[in-house]
Amino acid sequence: RSGEMAKLTQVIDNEVFRAYATYTAIVLLKMMLMSLITAYFRITRKAFVNPEDTAVFGKGESAKKNLRTDPDVERVRRGHLNDLENIVPFLGIGLLYALSGPELSTALLHFRIFAGARIVHTFAYLIPLPQPSRGLSWAVGYAVTISMAYKVLKAVLYL
Amino acid sequence: RSGEMAKLTQVIDNEVFRAYATYTAIVLLKMMLMSLITAYFRITRKAFVNPEDTAVFGKGESAKKNLRTDPDVERVRRGHLNDLENIVPFLGIGLLYALSGPELSTALLHFRIFAGARIVHTFAYLIPLPQPSRGLSWAVGYAVTISMAYKVLKAVLYL
Amino acid sequence: RSGEMAKLTQVIDNEVFRAYATYTAIVLLKMMLMSLITAYFRITRKAFVNPEDTAVFGKGESAKKNLRTDPDVERVRRGHLNDLENIVPFLGIGLLYALSGPELSTALLHFRIFAGARIVHTFAYLIPLPQPSRGLSWAVGYAVTISMAYKVLKAVLYL
Repeated sequence: RSGEMAKLTQVIDNEVFRAYATYTAIVLLKMMLMSLITAYFRITRKAFVNPEDTAVFGKGESAKKNLRTDPDVERVRRGHLNDLENIVPFLGIGLLYALSGPELSTALLHFRIFAGARIVHTFAYLIPLPQPSRGLSWAVGYAVTISMAYKVLKAVLYL
Repeated sequence: RSGEMAKLTQVIDNEVFRAYATYTAIVLLKMMLMSLITAYFRITRKAFVNPEDTAVFGKGESAKKNLRTDPDVERVRRGHLNDLENIVPFLGIGLLYALSGPELSTALLHFRIFAGARIVHTFAYLIPLPQPSRGLSWAVGYAVTISMAYKVLKAVLYL
Repeated sequence: RSGEMAKLTQVIDNEVFRAYATYTAIVLLKMMLMSLITAYFRITRKAFVNPEDTAVFGKGESAKKNLRTDPDVERVRRGHLNDLENIVPFLGIGLLYALSGPELSTALLHFRIFAGARIVHTFAYLIPLPQPSRGLSWAVGYAVTISMAYKVLKAVLYL
């Protein structure tokens, strides 16, 4: 068993793969943070969607009026969904890219720009910053993922 | 070719990786079940969102009144989205964690608690159980993912 | 380092894994296309959700009337979410399946049918085609993923 374990550990010892693991963990943790921010706004704005969540505010009308949408809550939720739409492709395509044998420096460039772009995107969405801040940060992350997909397909294409 | 195949099979023969594969398949199948539950409620509650889906109920007003939202359908959809928001991080971070060489017993503990928490979360959402059932089950899965992310970053950090 | 790199490259040289990488890149790129189609409809239909996105149309009432939902935009968004709900399980279960040592021809059959079904699903949703086009294409992709999950669990089950 320790022989197998060693083999697996070799995969993760590869520098490109370690970089992929680091930046993937960072962007996934950033995405998970959106859940906490949503919960924070739901509680401070008293804007819930499930009747059972308002029970803490008592029963009847006093609780019912907390079943409502709030612009700040909806904004965070849109940012969260945008993360899902963009980080899922990064997760899959980035893994294949890391396994396709890129130069370490090129790979680091891709991973760093993607992670930076998604962090800027979150600030641009939540503050919010005037456009085209959010649009540009979204486009940069998108372009990085397209670039990695192109390299993956060039390296492995097997239809 | 059979030599390469053998090498790949060795990866999946690793016990930690087999445990990851098992629990990942389970939580993804559980998430996929939400689609069937949504379809079940859409049909039994006659609550559709696409005009072409109501054609089976005839044309005109009789079909049009089935274009509506239903609280049960919306509840399942929220549970499905919550799965996506939490199982995607588990998919990515869990894979990296499995590759980072954890103890088998520790890894099994993480995977079992995560899968159990997500199954409890689904029941808590759909029945629904009174809070804090849903909140706690969500928090347990969240904490397990954070714990794995911490171990991944400690093992591989390469910025 | 080049020794490790070679080892990783061997993984991606496996034909089943190359096929998985190819079809995963294709379906993830297809999913990413939904963002561009959403943006296209938001701009041509002038239907935005964030106040800061309408600033380009001037201030006050002229901009405010562009803060609205549009049936075409909502349709693309539903297609995008359906992609997330179905392509995420394919991403995870397909990877484990590719690593579980399937026959190349069986694996290709699974990957090709899934990718084809999701492309048909997108056309069926966006045109839209009359039902059961969309329902059937969804079910085919779903069944392929279940089939792969069954083979993964049969090969690796470790609870």
